[in-house]
Amino acid sequence: MRFISEIDQLKSVLRQTRLASAGPGPGPGPGPGPGGRGRRENSAEHSWHLAMMAVVLAEHAPDGTDIGRVTAMVLLHDLVEIDAGDLFLYADDAQQARQEAAERTAADRIFALLPQDQAASLRRLWDEFEERRTPEARFARGLDRLQPMLANLKAGGGTWQEHGITADQVLAKVELIEDGSPSLGRYARNLVANAVAAGLLAPAAGGAGPGEGTR
Amino acid sequence: MRFISEIDQLKSVLRQTRLASAGPGPGPGPGPGPGGRGRRENSAEHSWHLAMMAVVLAEHAPDGTDIGRVTAMVLLHDLVEIDAGDLFLYADDAQQARQEAAERTAADRIFALLPQDQAASLRRLWDEFEERRTPEARFARGLDRLQPMLANLKAGGGTWQEHGITADQVLAKVELIEDGSPSLGRYARNLVANAVAAGLLAPAAGGAGPGEGTR
Repeated sequence: MRFISEIDQLKSVLRQTRLASAGPGPGPGPGPGPGGRGRRENSAEHSWHLAMMAVVLAEHAPDGTDIGRVTAMVLLHDLVEIDAGDLFLYADDAQQARQEAAERTAADRIFALLPQDQAASLRRLWDEFEERRTPEARFARGLDRLQPMLANLKAGGGTWQEHGITADQVLAKVELIEDGSPSLGRYARNLVANAVAAGLLAPAAGGAGPGEGTR
Repeated sequence: MRFISEIDQLKSVLRQTRLASAGPGPGPGPGPGPGGRGRRENSAEHSWHLAMMAVVLAEHAPDGTDIGRVTAMVLLHDLVEIDAGDLFLYADDAQQARQEAAERTAADRIFALLPQDQAASLRRLWDEFEERRTPEARFARGLDRLQPMLANLKAGGGTWQEHGITADQVLAKVELIEDGSPSLGRYARNLVANAVAAGLLAPAAGGAGPGEGTR
């Protein structure tokens, strides 16, 4: 119960990605209000979205993939951000290295809130996600790359535009999706081409780094 | 993919429950900001919390319960709120009946966005949750009742105080938790007693309805 109470904080960890949705559709539901269009996504609802994707995209995982383990993995993969915060996907190598160290320290603290046997099994699942060696981990990591691409497309460019990301940078992330699922990889590659054609994503600009893309 | 894009809207459906967490703990993470303490919880992050609870509280489910099915059930149980909105747990019978009709209409529309075989299997899972006949559905429904109780306790009273809910009303919901898991039911009953003792929840006031509790 201490663990269940502690993880509530993931709902307050904000990601770069913004919500494209304008709130509930037709029907008597409340309007978007303060939680509506344009606000930044938090890591708890991002994790929920990935878990739903694992359920409905299961057929795109390699034969024999244990989707229950994929789902559990994506549900807990961001818990370390309660201490370490979220780092933007396109941060530089030095920032990524600092983040990895901070996340390991966070995993030590957060999983230790569970009874010993559960602490060990959930920590193993988190390590598995990070190490990306099993089919489950590769598929889960692929979903984690695909979800913000879908969000950016829906938001008319989203963080690609905001941070001046170019197609070659996105395609480097698509390799991770292909590694987890060839069919989702093809889908993502196609999505990038469409985004460039639609003017939502700048084409690869010879050597242009973040900040030099569409801005 | 249309379904995956559509369900993004669940992140904008607001519940009565407010977050108690003050944002990330020690470490370099960002402060609570606009997504921090006190804002209302949305149904996507609520569903994530339930799925994490299913994983870590699995041992409290009756022997033979398929936790993978419980997890999938809690992940999708609130999707209908994209059209129907969230109804407060202590709404009256007439409101509950209207809500149930709206949710069935919503289920017809939302699950139909999936390929036919998936639409049918996810709809069956949603119906199973609603009908509360299988051990998986009973356990899932119990978690759905327990989570806001934990949130209210953490928030120093939360919606109990806000809506003048009394202990007898909460204990009626505890029966649903007991039905899914005797051990979690005992835990919840104890939680109610502690909340009353701590002055966070008004004791049963002979016949007092909503609005006449602590206010």
